[in-house]
Amino acid sequence: MDVFISGVGMTKFGRSKDSLEKMMAEAAGLALKDAQLERVDAIYIGVMNVEEFVGDSNFATLLADTIGLTGIPSTRVETASSTGAGVFETAFYAVASGHMKNVLVLAGEKMTHLPTAKTTRILSEVIDRSERRYGATMPALAAMIAQKYAREFNLSQQKLMDILAQVAIKNHSNGSLNPYAQFRKTITKDNYMKSQMVSYPLRLYDCAPITDGASAIVLTSQPTLVKVSGIGHATDTSAVRHRGSFTSFNSTKEAAIKAYTMAQLNPSDIQFGEVHDAFTLFEIIGTEDLGLFPSGMGWKALEEGITQMRGRLPINPSGGLKSRGHPVGASGLAQLVEIVYQLRGEAEEERQLERAEIGLAQSIGGLGNNNLVTILERSDRKRVMKEGWKPDYHPEIKVSPKVTTPPPSEGVGILETFTTLYATPEGFRSPLTLGFVKTKTGERVMACNPDYRSPKELKMGKSVYLKTREGLYVFEKLTLWRRLKHWIKG
Amino acid sequence: MDVFISGVGMTKFGRSKDSLEKMMAEAAGLALKDAQLERVDAIYIGVMNVEEFVGDSNFATLLADTIGLTGIPSTRVETASSTGAGVFETAFYAVASGHMKNVLVLAGEKMTHLPTAKTTRILSEVIDRSERRYGATMPALAAMIAQKYAREFNLSQQKLMDILAQVAIKNHSNGSLNPYAQFRKTITKDNYMKSQMVSYPLRLYDCAPITDGASAIVLTSQPTLVKVSGIGHATDTSAVRHRGSFTSFNSTKEAAIKAYTMAQLNPSDIQFGEVHDAFTLFEIIGTEDLGLFPSGMGWKALEEGITQMRGRLPINPSGGLKSRGHPVGASGLAQLVEIVYQLRGEAEEERQLERAEIGLAQSIGGLGNNNLVTILERSDRKRVMKEGWKPDYHPEIKVSPKVTTPPPSEGVGILETFTTLYATPEGFRSPLTLGFVKTKTGERVMACNPDYRSPKELKMGKSVYLKTREGLYVFEKLTLWRRLKHWIKG
Repeated sequence: MDVFISGVGMTKFGRSKDSLEKMMAEAAGLALKDAQLERVDAIYIGVMNVEEFVGDSNFATLLADTIGLTGIPSTRVETASSTGAGVFETAFYAVASGHMKNVLVLAGEKMTHLPTAKTTRILSEVIDRSERRYGATMPALAAMIAQKYAREFNLSQQKLMDILAQVAIKNHSNGSLNPYAQFRKTITKDNYMKSQMVSYPLRLYDCAPITDGASAIVLTSQPTLVKVSGIGHATDTSAVRHRGSFTSFNSTKEAAIKAYTMAQLNPSDIQFGEVHDAFTLFEIIGTEDLGLFPSGMGWKALEEGITQMRGRLPINPSGGLKSRGHPVGASGLAQLVEIVYQLRGEAEEERQLERAEIGLAQSIGGLGNNNLVTILERSDRKRVMKEGWKPDYHPEIKVSPKVTTPPPSEGVGILETFTTLYATPEGFRSPLTLGFVKTKTGERVMACNPDYRSPKELKMGKSVYLKTREGLYVFEKLTLWRRLKHWIKG
Repeated sequence: MDVFISGVGMTKFGRSKDSLEKMMAEAAGLALKDAQLERVDAIYIGVMNVEEFVGDSNFATLLADTIGLTGIPSTRVETASSTGAGVFETAFYAVASGHMKNVLVLAGEKMTHLPTAKTTRILSEVIDRSERRYGATMPALAAMIAQKYAREFNLSQQKLMDILAQVAIKNHSNGSLNPYAQFRKTITKDNYMKSQMVSYPLRLYDCAPITDGASAIVLTSQPTLVKVSGIGHATDTSAVRHRGSFTSFNSTKEAAIKAYTMAQLNPSDIQFGEVHDAFTLFEIIGTEDLGLFPSGMGWKALEEGITQMRGRLPINPSGGLKSRGHPVGASGLAQLVEIVYQLRGEAEEERQLERAEIGLAQSIGGLGNNNLVTILERSDRKRVMKEGWKPDYHPEIKVSPKVTTPPPSEGVGILETFTTLYATPEGFRSPLTLGFVKTKTGERVMACNPDYRSPKELKMGKSVYLKTREGLYVFEKLTLWRRLKHWIKG
């Protein structure tokens, strides 16, 4: 059964004095009003970590009661930072099954009321325990991916910073036109360069902010102007070090194949996109993983203005997570609210895109391991669906061979990528240098180095000496003496 | 599209040394093997509070990776203590939509590793904040419901205890035959009477234990021996004091109507049931709310042996939450695993029911405000479904009128029900006396009384004096002096 969207709504994102349930009720009210409905058959609620951010459990019930729909089935759904997209997918199946006619999808998060180090600690819980225990945070892992991307595609540090700044500048420019955005200000290259280093090479302006907010969509089996054309969902390894690639996300690629296949659309059909720019580089990687640009060429498309608001393929006309803000549970659904505004021609004048008949959203859960791709389309685009249709999109899925032997406790290895983390989570000293090291026997391990105080002292691709201290890997400079000792031992 | 069950599995419930993901992987392995499948189209994961019990977020991803199904869509679902049933419902729609052929439903919780007061505090977060702040726990609220039930149906305290003991004895007896149960021992009335008072009048043997465990089911669109006939889901007010009735749960009744309607079955068609006996009395109330026995007569059916293993309508042949154990996220799905064992005739000889063609499970989320009813049936029972069929089940849904004026800060009220809580959550002194008081203007408030040390000093239906201290309602004896003072003021 086809599924359509009959109502959307969202709160202004930012720092809010309202409780989470009040914000979500506000978004729900707007979406229900938009759909001209007073009741629905069920509510699906997306919140990532209401338990620790707010201290509540049984939140689906509280919300049904708060919005005055006591009695109606209410279910909470969570897929880490892609929760807003995950709850939309879940509700989609409920309507597609024919068991539900109208369903309210609600997503939100309240985050700004806690100290930043605590919020950072809570957000870090999406990271695999084996990597989290080193003090790795989302920005730290994203920073190591950014370093690796620059190395893989031969971009100088200067060039990488240029590119990242351009993403931030573009998305802030778009967000400045969005009344729902947390930051309604444009930024300059100078602002970007002066912003605080969070985890080298990522600055504050490379990271989506901490935000309160809620978004809502009403799904229906009754035809409306906006149709849900395709949904794809995929996971990847829990630990980042088990990935086949550090510069692309299999989970986006696999989700994209499914979404394109369901929608019977190719990447070239997509007219605009909302891409999960929790970190600036992730927008670049996202556009590549979605097949919108070839691998390693996303930054070029940005430079050429293709992804600008008036470019051929606008990315994040809303301002993205970067500028609209990132209430973790809400963002995936807010992307879809933006696409509906664009498809209906309801975005503010300066922000309304010219071509807005097919829009795509990509949402990342965790560090790229629970991702969704959703395609919405104007239903007045008449077209014939064909049995067994396949998209002309064949991304390479890079899988790391399963290593079953434990890595050696000491020895020489290659520093594949690294970062120096300044904004450490609760319980960790700052700064903290982290890296991924490939051992001689082929395993990749996360390692820290308490000595390095500046990322300038390290180089990717160089040999380092790996040892274990208190159950953690530590990497050190490979001195002549160590090299010799190791050679004698070996 | 019809949905069937092709595989089931569960771990032994109890105290486990295994991690949550290891337990869930074990259950998943058993269910996949039973279904003769190596891969599925998606995984739906039910855990109630992995964030606080285990300290993880992004658990759906971790689990997909742990069970060797990296890449597959994985979504976490939560509806408080009915999570196991909620995740089953969610996965059901995914298959019923035709978008998925085979789906793995997994549910689990790890709870025994924390101190009891901390576990109690975490479990209490399902209670509405406005009642939780008094120190109310699940046993405390259940105890007040038990007191009210006795008063409403004219049962003496002695009689109430007899009935509660009989539920515990029956379920322990059933559980003693279940290899998956936490407690495989029968208990006597004497054991029951000697067990520690948790919240007057509920003893340790009235409460489901703290448990580790996992359960798994594979859903499929391919016909198998077991069909999912009906699912119903409903919520009720977040706060217990806003209920229309203290002795029945609207959410069970409304969920039951939906499940019977979908299945085109009447309560009289049900041959056996798994009913959410988190507290002994809840089994009695459950059987009434499901329409299996008239309101206020559930205890009589128990006394007459009807709900015994060899009775006409066996309830909790598995031993129920009481004896099988209650890993909060897993229980709702474990009930369905038990029903599948019975329908397939695979229960152990002594436990296998004679009539096992239609089984029903009822699962309670929170304090009766996010409940599900699921009916499974042998698919070789050929019958014709009729358009617009309605069940002969018309329960009274009692709703409290919405009170918009705030209750007075001081005055005379009626003590509707009360309890003395001995096992208080982290941060509260023991014992703690709590009650629901109806004010003269008709509002119901929760109130505490720091003075009463024994429940024997209090009586339901008597006038008490209500005042506010530090933002909390406190109730006290209505002395002549207070009565006079109030009369002069009034």
